[in-house]
Amino acid sequence: MSYPPLAELAARVERFQEVLKSRGMDGALLLQGADLVYFCGTTQSAHLYVPARGRALFMIRRSKERVDPTLVPAEVVPLRRPEEIPGLLADRGLAMPEVLGMELDVLPVNLFRRYEKIFPGQIVDCSLQIRELRAVKSAYEIGLLKESAAMMDGVFARIPEMLREGICELELAARVEAAARCAGHMGLIRVRGFNQEFFWGCLLAGPSGGVPSYFDSPLGGPGFTPAFPFGVGKHSIAPGDPVMVDYVGVANGYQVDMTRVFALGYLPGDLLKAHEVAVSIQNALVAAARPGVTGGELYELALTMAAGAGLAEHFMGYGDRVRFVGHGIGLELNELPVLARGVKEKLQAGMVMAVEPKFIFPDRGAVGIENTFVVGERGLERLTSYPDEVVIV
Amino acid sequence: MSYPPLAELAARVERFQEVLKSRGMDGALLLQGADLVYFCGTTQSAHLYVPARGRALFMIRRSKERVDPTLVPAEVVPLRRPEEIPGLLADRGLAMPEVLGMELDVLPVNLFRRYEKIFPGQIVDCSLQIRELRAVKSAYEIGLLKESAAMMDGVFARIPEMLREGICELELAARVEAAARCAGHMGLIRVRGFNQEFFWGCLLAGPSGGVPSYFDSPLGGPGFTPAFPFGVGKHSIAPGDPVMVDYVGVANGYQVDMTRVFALGYLPGDLLKAHEVAVSIQNALVAAARPGVTGGELYELALTMAAGAGLAEHFMGYGDRVRFVGHGIGLELNELPVLARGVKEKLQAGMVMAVEPKFIFPDRGAVGIENTFVVGERGLERLTSYPDEVVIV
Repeated sequence: MSYPPLAELAARVERFQEVLKSRGMDGALLLQGADLVYFCGTTQSAHLYVPARGRALFMIRRSKERVDPTLVPAEVVPLRRPEEIPGLLADRGLAMPEVLGMELDVLPVNLFRRYEKIFPGQIVDCSLQIRELRAVKSAYEIGLLKESAAMMDGVFARIPEMLREGICELELAARVEAAARCAGHMGLIRVRGFNQEFFWGCLLAGPSGGVPSYFDSPLGGPGFTPAFPFGVGKHSIAPGDPVMVDYVGVANGYQVDMTRVFALGYLPGDLLKAHEVAVSIQNALVAAARPGVTGGELYELALTMAAGAGLAEHFMGYGDRVRFVGHGIGLELNELPVLARGVKEKLQAGMVMAVEPKFIFPDRGAVGIENTFVVGERGLERLTSYPDEVVIV
Repeated sequence: MSYPPLAELAARVERFQEVLKSRGMDGALLLQGADLVYFCGTTQSAHLYVPARGRALFMIRRSKERVDPTLVPAEVVPLRRPEEIPGLLADRGLAMPEVLGMELDVLPVNLFRRYEKIFPGQIVDCSLQIRELRAVKSAYEIGLLKESAAMMDGVFARIPEMLREGICELELAARVEAAARCAGHMGLIRVRGFNQEFFWGCLLAGPSGGVPSYFDSPLGGPGFTPAFPFGVGKHSIAPGDPVMVDYVGVANGYQVDMTRVFALGYLPGDLLKAHEVAVSIQNALVAAARPGVTGGELYELALTMAAGAGLAEHFMGYGDRVRFVGHGIGLELNELPVLARGVKEKLQAGMVMAVEPKFIFPDRGAVGIENTFVVGERGLERLTSYPDEVVIV
């Protein structure tokens, strides 16, 4: 139950204050769980007010008694209703913001209208600024990511012993998930945005891996009820089925995303070959992804290699393919940067991302690889380390 | 993977159309996963337009190929971008709505502004109307709830064999969760609203059960990382610890919520007594909760009984207590009705709710009961059936 160092948290708040000043915001009022964890080390039912200048204010409805004020880079005060915020600011000599940043990418309209009454100035979106700050990880954060990666490497190492002929996808998933949970998986996967319904990942064997996803992902699985048509189904695993295990692991708030392919007995030669192409695409991206390169360039490199191997139409989906090959990851699953068609933003050292070249074969399944990496000066540095090859059991 | 009957889905859409007419809305545009499941039987990346009069339109970005149009009470069409919606309406002779309902309780501001440009008329909130419709379950829905309840009864029946001295809370939780997953738990728990970070429930032993929750719940658990201070901790379970197992089960989209208390060897007499009071409160509510009774009356009845037993200050929290004793449940965990202080809405037959009288003892733990019920003409009819008594192992 270790808490982030206060200096680390304070530095994050200071960097955000610089951004607020440069963007003409007088302050920001943050509510979202992941953002509170980023700036305060924990989440509660709370508001964090960060003035462009001055000390931040962590206003907690519940549970104030669960927050140690000496660990937080803000004054910690109780708050019953957001309507009390102007009074709390005035008591501290903080002016009411004329331009207030809020997380308008996630804040619902009905709630927003309540804040509009409380803050008569202009309310603008500050979510992109927060996401950009959060994209570049500190050494401390990379240490936490390594903990989550080690946890998941250990879980994946146990999958071969769990796999046997005739086991149902769902039962295998239950075993993998139980191993992850015992190893300290915190359960919750944070995905930023509206309607982001997600559960841990996918374990997809044979034809389940060929089912198109309903969200922007190369694969999503059939699920086993139309009420949640995502993830693991109930296919009985047979020899020769590619068993794609794509899970998000999180021990301490920081997520890693990884995918491996297992098979009973054998895997058909063309699928094995496609898997090798995916690994070679990954390795090319590892070398090419340096500070200054854009996410768009990396996507095109990956697509060109897939096409060179004659696999373009299977790359990142089949039919309705997605146009990305990697995504930032950290406190949330869908962070910046994105390695996608047309992305002009340049990579920076310290960014963390999952790279996931995959090939989808309708009715047969999916192969490919996914690891989580840090952008270093000489390319990507790997966090998840379980071997990339198909594991034949 | 059974799909709801078309007549069932069509009746839901028709009831919603009646509500739209009565509220002066010309149509509603729905995006949220649970609402799409309710009206269309499944969720995709999609928009459902329900005109007050005429045939609904299910516009799917992905994956249209995963939806069988003969199963859905709407015309199914592809949609790349929401800006195409006016054209799709015009093609079908549907007028652009002057007053359009949307789910403004969950729709984020940035997305809303995009829809404001597409729909120049007035956009109003229709979420309460949908939640009111969804609160009263059909016989078909109650059948699905019974499936989820039977699944969770089976999981709880296996807990005694899993409990042993010294087992860590987290390891026990992993076993319970794996059993639930194998039994067909679909993984995702839907909780309506912004920032509703939740994972399956809580398994809280001894002092973990006494930790105040950061959300509006009698107990929430410590978690084991400040990044997600919720749920199971790592307490080693000792004889005499109340082991409160509070899980949400969902096999087919429909959730049940249930809580039981287990203990190794014994439970201190005052905690056993408090548990019996909780069960007697539940049983009083079962008899009292009939159509026409309000949620507020039921809460006051429960509080009065707790106070009569000298346990008011432990009821539904300690210190920062919550003022409810039950909540609607179905496709989402926080449905209507709410059995809470001041609630004036009257129960209706067919409403489904979790009733959860609990007592919290700081540093010692929590006892109490939770079951999921349907409101019947003569009181509550029970869905979850595992025995209510403390299980001593």
